[in-house]
Amino acid sequence: MASKDKELRPKARIPRGFRDRLGPEIAAERDMLARISAVYERWGFDPLETPAFEYTDALGKFLPDDDRPNAGVFSLQDDDEQWMSLRYDLTAPLARYVAENYDALPKPFRRYQVGPVWRNEKPGPGRYRQFTQCDADTVGAPAPNADAEMCMMFADVIEAAGVARGEYIIRMCDRRLLDDLLNLIGLESNEAAERRRTVLRAMDKFERLGEGGVRLLLGPGRKDESGDFTKGAELGDGNIDRIIDFMQANEPTNAETCYRLKGIVGTSDNARWRVDTLEAITSQLSAVGYDEGRIKIDLSVVRGLEYYTGPVFEAEVLWTPRGEDGKPVRLGSVGGGGRYDGLVKRFKGVEVPSVGFSVGVSRLLAALEFKTDAFQAAPGPIVVLALEAGQMAEYQKMAAALRAAGLRAEVYLGGAGMKAQLKYADKRRAPIAVIQGSDERAKGEVTIKDLVLGAELSKNIEDNAEWRESQPAQVSVTREKLVAKVKEILARRRP
Amino acid sequence: MASKDKELRPKARIPRGFRDRLGPEIAAERDMLARISAVYERWGFDPLETPAFEYTDALGKFLPDDDRPNAGVFSLQDDDEQWMSLRYDLTAPLARYVAENYDALPKPFRRYQVGPVWRNEKPGPGRYRQFTQCDADTVGAPAPNADAEMCMMFADVIEAAGVARGEYIIRMCDRRLLDDLLNLIGLESNEAAERRRTVLRAMDKFERLGEGGVRLLLGPGRKDESGDFTKGAELGDGNIDRIIDFMQANEPTNAETCYRLKGIVGTSDNARWRVDTLEAITSQLSAVGYDEGRIKIDLSVVRGLEYYTGPVFEAEVLWTPRGEDGKPVRLGSVGGGGRYDGLVKRFKGVEVPSVGFSVGVSRLLAALEFKTDAFQAAPGPIVVLALEAGQMAEYQKMAAALRAAGLRAEVYLGGAGMKAQLKYADKRRAPIAVIQGSDERAKGEVTIKDLVLGAELSKNIEDNAEWRESQPAQVSVTREKLVAKVKEILARRRP
Repeated sequence: MASKDKELRPKARIPRGFRDRLGPEIAAERDMLARISAVYERWGFDPLETPAFEYTDALGKFLPDDDRPNAGVFSLQDDDEQWMSLRYDLTAPLARYVAENYDALPKPFRRYQVGPVWRNEKPGPGRYRQFTQCDADTVGAPAPNADAEMCMMFADVIEAAGVARGEYIIRMCDRRLLDDLLNLIGLESNEAAERRRTVLRAMDKFERLGEGGVRLLLGPGRKDESGDFTKGAELGDGNIDRIIDFMQANEPTNAETCYRLKGIVGTSDNARWRVDTLEAITSQLSAVGYDEGRIKIDLSVVRGLEYYTGPVFEAEVLWTPRGEDGKPVRLGSVGGGGRYDGLVKRFKGVEVPSVGFSVGVSRLLAALEFKTDAFQAAPGPIVVLALEAGQMAEYQKMAAALRAAGLRAEVYLGGAGMKAQLKYADKRRAPIAVIQGSDERAKGEVTIKDLVLGAELSKNIEDNAEWRESQPAQVSVTREKLVAKVKEILARRRP
Repeated sequence: MASKDKELRPKARIPRGFRDRLGPEIAAERDMLARISAVYERWGFDPLETPAFEYTDALGKFLPDDDRPNAGVFSLQDDDEQWMSLRYDLTAPLARYVAENYDALPKPFRRYQVGPVWRNEKPGPGRYRQFTQCDADTVGAPAPNADAEMCMMFADVIEAAGVARGEYIIRMCDRRLLDDLLNLIGLESNEAAERRRTVLRAMDKFERLGEGGVRLLLGPGRKDESGDFTKGAELGDGNIDRIIDFMQANEPTNAETCYRLKGIVGTSDNARWRVDTLEAITSQLSAVGYDEGRIKIDLSVVRGLEYYTGPVFEAEVLWTPRGEDGKPVRLGSVGGGGRYDGLVKRFKGVEVPSVGFSVGVSRLLAALEFKTDAFQAAPGPIVVLALEAGQMAEYQKMAAALRAAGLRAEVYLGGAGMKAQLKYADKRRAPIAVIQGSDERAKGEVTIKDLVLGAELSKNIEDNAEWRESQPAQVSVTREKLVAKVKEILARRRP
């Protein structure tokens, strides 16, 4: 019978690719999101909350991962046969919301949204199937003013999250400038699609291979150290020069970059118009005081931007932490966004010019954790030991008095002995244990044990007997002085 | 071609039974949850976040709605064939988490969790398929101390949410006391199951039918005003007296109620032990200062408690608002909880004594909204009009200066004329519009328009011409005085 019982028991396990998160990390994320939300609100953005589900046909194919347009979402059929999917980002639900409520909304419509999104993807290290996004968008506002505003607010948001000015950069570009460039060098036809991809792949390797390597990949092809040969795009020298010029057009100031860019792609009307837009955005930024130290045009921003239809921007933090193995950890982008004029069109048939960005909440938190070790620092509650069964109300009163003074405090409720209770307090990372046994009670006293100091002392003092003797981490006071003494001990610790 | 395009367009619609939520309501909920979370943290509870999904077999049949044990959840099959379900509450994921991490956890384990849950139910008015829960639980702590603590914290939480002391009551009972009572009157056998249900149904009607009606339903049966006859439980007079005594045993103090209860069910060892537990809880409560004005034993708490295995408690606010139709709105429970010792047993095979409660976030918010009309009060941002295309940077600087002073401010970005911009500001519930056209700019001035006062004046003054003349809601100041003047106008408005 017992073994049958056991067989029927389900195994307690978290679904594959998901994770549980605990106290300090949640608190850190919540605090960061509150600071970011406060920035959004100050800029006039209102919060919106859409449900986790959207009808699958309304979600569309707007997954950033363009290789798997219909994969990647969790879907199920409702009892009225309609397919629903969990949202994979916060932009597709925004498009649905705007289209559904178009006439009633103020235009432009500014909203921000914070919440979980779900991706039905193969999980990997640090790659989860549920994570938090935090977006702001302005719907119904054309470039360049709304784009400039987004960049400014993005900078404010990153600083509010805890990244100091000078420790991050927002890089700006326009993906379609690359298309213009490829058109200019004669790769605009459908037949040239494969060569376009070869060129883009080569450009994406600029940072790793340098100018020489990319020149080979744009021209005859390149043999790497292992002897493997990569076929080239077989462009002529003039066109290769043009591409290399383009990628090296990043000048110290945005104005200079725009000037140089016009020299490279200015023979195309489209491209010139795009450069004009970048120039209008950045000149407004610098007039308001957001200069190249915060937002900079960077023509090496090539990747994954199919989603957007205009200027794009991407934020990166500039410190390079070292992992546990001593190697530098590449932090990558901590958020990005851009202009997408077509998203509402699917529903309404008209283009609604929009611009927005998404903060990479987990990445930004991880980057800040590397820098400040903030998650470790959160203190546990003060633990009031429960040594006499008949005194629970007294213990609760002590805890209540500590809480009334703004401190975290709890009474031990497990029913074990003193030693186990002190172990519990350690496990809870309690800074202090409050102890009143029958002896103390008879004298109207409580013993306050400084667990942090105690742990340090027991590390430093070899002779355990000597330590027991001195017990400098433990002090007895009258019951009335409990709160004052606890505060005194905690104040001592904070510099 | 155009009509074909149109045909392919999906309809923008929110899935059935879900809802979008906007600014003021989200802000109100977020603020309330922050205040509640702060209480949990002060009591030593740490936040836990589990994912939206659990494996279906791990969720079990713990839906509070016992009539449909396996219905009610959204489920789908993962690509490895395992069934996953969206969580329908925060307790089942807690049980899974505790069982999965049992050895590593401090015991007792205190955690709180805030987040959405999903119910795959027929939607109805005010009944959504996604809503927020906010739970606290202590796992691994036996009664009565942990139960007493939960009740105290529950009271603190309700007060932190904005309900004043005296305006709510937490009613406490133990569902199994009813079972004991039914056993005492000879209804313990399996064959008596139908009569037990008849008795419970009759008891549940006490508030509506009064003693006389319930006596008939417990005895020979009852004919209602329409002439319909309801079959009775056919109990003898002694047993009917006993049940009526039980339901009327609510005395002014918890101690008196316990004393009287022992007289009614004290011949059962089980029942006496349960009354002892209620007595131990409430005497601790009153020793710490949480008296019957906050937490009271109430034997009429009968409903939906199959879930629990010991003391249960339920909070209710005591005001009765009137709806738009002038009729009183029944607010019902704003949260509840109790002891459930069996939840982890499914995984571990051992009972882990636990107690917790769940705050009815939406109900509590709705109750507070009826009382304070809080959602309406949230102000929109100050809107800086954009009248000259070349002056965007100046407008952004004005908005930045207002934000630096802690105010919400935005620049209009839509590209329409002045009249439409003022309409936009109204739609945004902007308290103030800041206007600088070319004339003002030439003089180094800005015009500040008080939109709230303006709206009031235009309501009161019949003669539109007179209003235009006086324009007391509009003032011009030099650019440097913008922030000071705006603050002055806003300060004037707040009493």
